Amino acid sequence: MKPIITGNYSIYFNEDGYDSLNQFIKDFKPSKIAVITDTNTSKYCKSKLISRLVSESEIIDICINPGEENKNLETCIKVWNELSKNHFDRKSLIINLGGGVVTDLGGFVASTFLRGVSFINIPTSLLAMVDASVGGKTGIDLGVLKNQIGVMSNPKMVIIDASYLKTLPLNHFNSGLAEALKHGLIYSENHWNKLTTDIITLETPVLSEIIFESVQIKNTIVSQDYYEAGLRKSLNFGHTLGHAIESYSLSEKKIKPLLHGEAIAIGMVLEAFLSHIYFDLPKQTVDEIHFVFKKYFSSVSFDKESIDDIISYLIFDKKNNNLQVNFVLLKKIGSPVFDIQVSNIDILKAFKYYLE
Amino acid sequence: MKPIITGNYSIYFNEDGYDSLNQFIKDFKPSKIAVITDTNTSKYCKSKLISRLVSESEIIDICINPGEENKNLETCIKVWNELSKNHFDRKSLIINLGGGVVTDLGGFVASTFLRGVSFINIPTSLLAMVDASVGGKTGIDLGVLKNQIGVMSNPKMVIIDASYLKTLPLNHFNSGLAEALKHGLIYSENHWNKLTTDIITLETPVLSEIIFESVQIKNTIVSQDYYEAGLRKSLNFGHTLGHAIESYSLSEKKIKPLLHGEAIAIGMVLEAFLSHIYFDLPKQTVDEIHFVFKKYFSSVSFDKESIDDIISYLIFDKKNNNLQVNFVLLKKIGSPVFDIQVSNIDILKAFKYYLE
Repeated sequence: MKPIITGNYSIYFNEDGYDSLNQFIKDFKPSKIAVITDTNTSKYCKSKLISRLVSESEIIDICINPGEENKNLETCIKVWNELSKNHFDRKSLIINLGGGVVTDLGGFVASTFLRGVSFINIPTSLLAMVDASVGGKTGIDLGVLKNQIGVMSNPKMVIIDASYLKTLPLNHFNSGLAEALKHGLIYSENHWNKLTTDIITLETPVLSEIIFESVQIKNTIVSQDYYEAGLRKSLNFGHTLGHAIESYSLSEKKIKPLLHGEAIAIGMVLEAFLSHIYFDLPKQTVDEIHFVFKKYFSSVSFDKESIDDIISYLIFDKKNNNLQVNFVLLKKIGSPVFDIQVSNIDILKAFKYYLE
Repeated sequence: MKPIITGNYSIYFNEDGYDSLNQFIKDFKPSKIAVITDTNTSKYCKSKLISRLVSESEIIDICINPGEENKNLETCIKVWNELSKNHFDRKSLIINLGGGVVTDLGGFVASTFLRGVSFINIPTSLLAMVDASVGGKTGIDLGVLKNQIGVMSNPKMVIIDASYLKTLPLNHFNSGLAEALKHGLIYSENHWNKLTTDIITLETPVLSEIIFESVQIKNTIVSQDYYEAGLRKSLNFGHTLGHAIESYSLSEKKIKPLLHGEAIAIGMVLEAFLSHIYFDLPKQTVDEIHFVFKKYFSSVSFDKESIDDIISYLIFDKKNNNLQVNFVLLKKIGSPVFDIQVSNIDILKAFKYYLE
C-alpha cells in the first residue's frame, strides 16, 4: 500500500511504516525518544512497536490513563513534567502510540513543550486512524468542553498498522467506523455503498482498503482547505449535535457516557433528518442512514429535559461565529452544504424522528 | 516614528498605534474583544487604551494577578474559562495590555484557545517593549522552569506607547534596560555607547529613540533567523546563567526573588567574563560591562552552595541539545559567538569575578 502524502508529512501503512520510522530516526538523530501510551496500548501495542524500532537514542516510556476524561491539562502537566525531569530538549522526539486521546494530547504536549518538539503518531484505534491521522489538529478538553485548547501542528509522519486493531474492543471499533461512514456521506456515495453492503468487522477482508480510502478522502478534503474556510467544514457533519451529545453524556449522569463515534452517529441521524427538512434529502435516504447506524449502535433515549440541555451545549461549538450555531447538512449523499443555521424546533423534530 | 515591519505584522509607535488598531478592528470585525491586563495595568494603563479604542464589538475585561509567579497554567485555565464562559469564538480578538507576563501568557492563551484566535500585544513595561514585542515567542512557566510551555505565534500587531512607562516602578524600568543593553552588546557598539554615556531614566530625552533602535536590532536578528538555527541564538547572551539564576531566585529562599532583567544583568557580567577566558574579550571591556550594570543593579551575593545549585539549573535550558549546555559569548562588543560549552570551573571563576 503506497503512502499518502498530506501537507508536509506522509502516512505509511502497515510494515512499511516501521522502515520509514527507522530511516527518519537515523537521519534526525533524536537526543531522546519518548513513547507515549495509555495503559491499554502500553499493554497491547507497545511491544510490537519496540520490537520494530531501531534506535541508538535513549527511549523513555510515558504512560497516561486512558479515556476522554483524561484528555485534559492535568494529564498534560504530568507528561510535560516527565519530559522535563528526563531532560528532553528540542532535538528530542515524541512517538504517540494510542487512540485519539493519546495522539491529540501527545501532539499538543509535543507542540507546546519548549515551544515545539518533533512528534510521530501511530494511531491504534480505528477512529484515530481514519480521523486524527490527517489534518494537524491537536488538542485537549477544558472541563467538559471538547478540544477547546489546542494548536494546529503536523507530526513528522503517521504509521497506520491495522494489526493494532486486534485488541480494540468492539464498541471502540464501531466508534471509528462512524467516522469512516461519515466520509462516505459527505464525499463519496461509492465509499458509503462499500461500507454499507455488509457489516464491517475486524475480519472484513477489505478492512485495510476501507481505512486507506477513508484517510484518502479526509486528506483530499483537508488539503483543499487546511484552515477550514470552506470544504473542510463538511467534516463536521454530525458533529454539531454529536459534540453536544458527547459533552452532555460525559458531564451529566442521565445517559451513559458515549464514545465519540457513538455520539456523532446519533448526530449524523439527527442532521440527516435536518437535511431532509432544509435541503430535501429524501426521507428514504434518512431512513437508510438511520438503519445503517442502528446496525452498529444501540439507541439512546433522551427525555425533553436532556434534549434542552443538549441544545444549550451547542453554543460552545468551536465552529460558531457570533453565537450563531452552524450546521453541515446534506443535499444528497456525497454533497454537503455548510454554515447552515437551523431552528430549535427543527432540532426537536429531528430528536423525535431519532426516538421513534 | 515609522512602524517596524516584522514577519507578518507591524509594530506601531505611540499615538499612531491606536489609529492602526482601530483600522484593524474596523476591517476584522471581531465578534468580541477581550482586554487582558494584570492588576497593575488594569489600574494604570487600561483607561488610556479604552479611551482610544473605537469598536462596536462587546469588550470583556480579564484581569490576572501580576508577576512571574503567576505566569503559569493555573492563570491560563482562569483565562481560558473566562473566554469560554463569555462564548468567545474563532472570530474574537484578544488584546494583551501589560508587561511580559501578560503578553507571553496572553499570547499563549490566544494561540491555543479553539486552536488559535487573533491577538494584539500592547506592552507596558520596557522589558516587554524591547524584548517580547518581536519574535513570536509565547509561553508560560512549568513550576520554576521558565517558558517551558509555549508556541511560536505572531500577534496581528504590536503597539509601543512609551507613555505607559510613566507608572512603571524603577526596578522594572531597569530590568528592561538590561535587555536594551544586551542588544548593544551582541549587535551594535554604537547602541551600547548611546546607552552607556549617561544613566537612562524615564526623563532621558532620547528614550523613545532608544526603544525604537532596540526593537529594530532585535527585529534585524530575528528576521534573519526566525527558528533560532544561528544568529538568533545571540539574543541568549546572559540568559544561560541568567535564567538559571532567575529560576533559582524564585524557587529558593536564599536570595531575594530577581526580576528577569536583574538576573540576566548578572548573567551578562558572568558571560562577559567567560568571553574573556574563551575568546579574549579584553578584561577592560568586561570591567566596563560590570561597571555599567552596577549603575542599575545592586550586587547579589551568592555562596558556594547557591552557585552549585544554579549550575544544576543550567541543564533545563531550552537551548540545550543532548544535555550539552550552550553559551553565547562575545569576541568583542557587537560580535557574538554561540553554541559554546564552558567548564563548571570557569563558571565558578566568573562568579568569583562578579563577587569581587
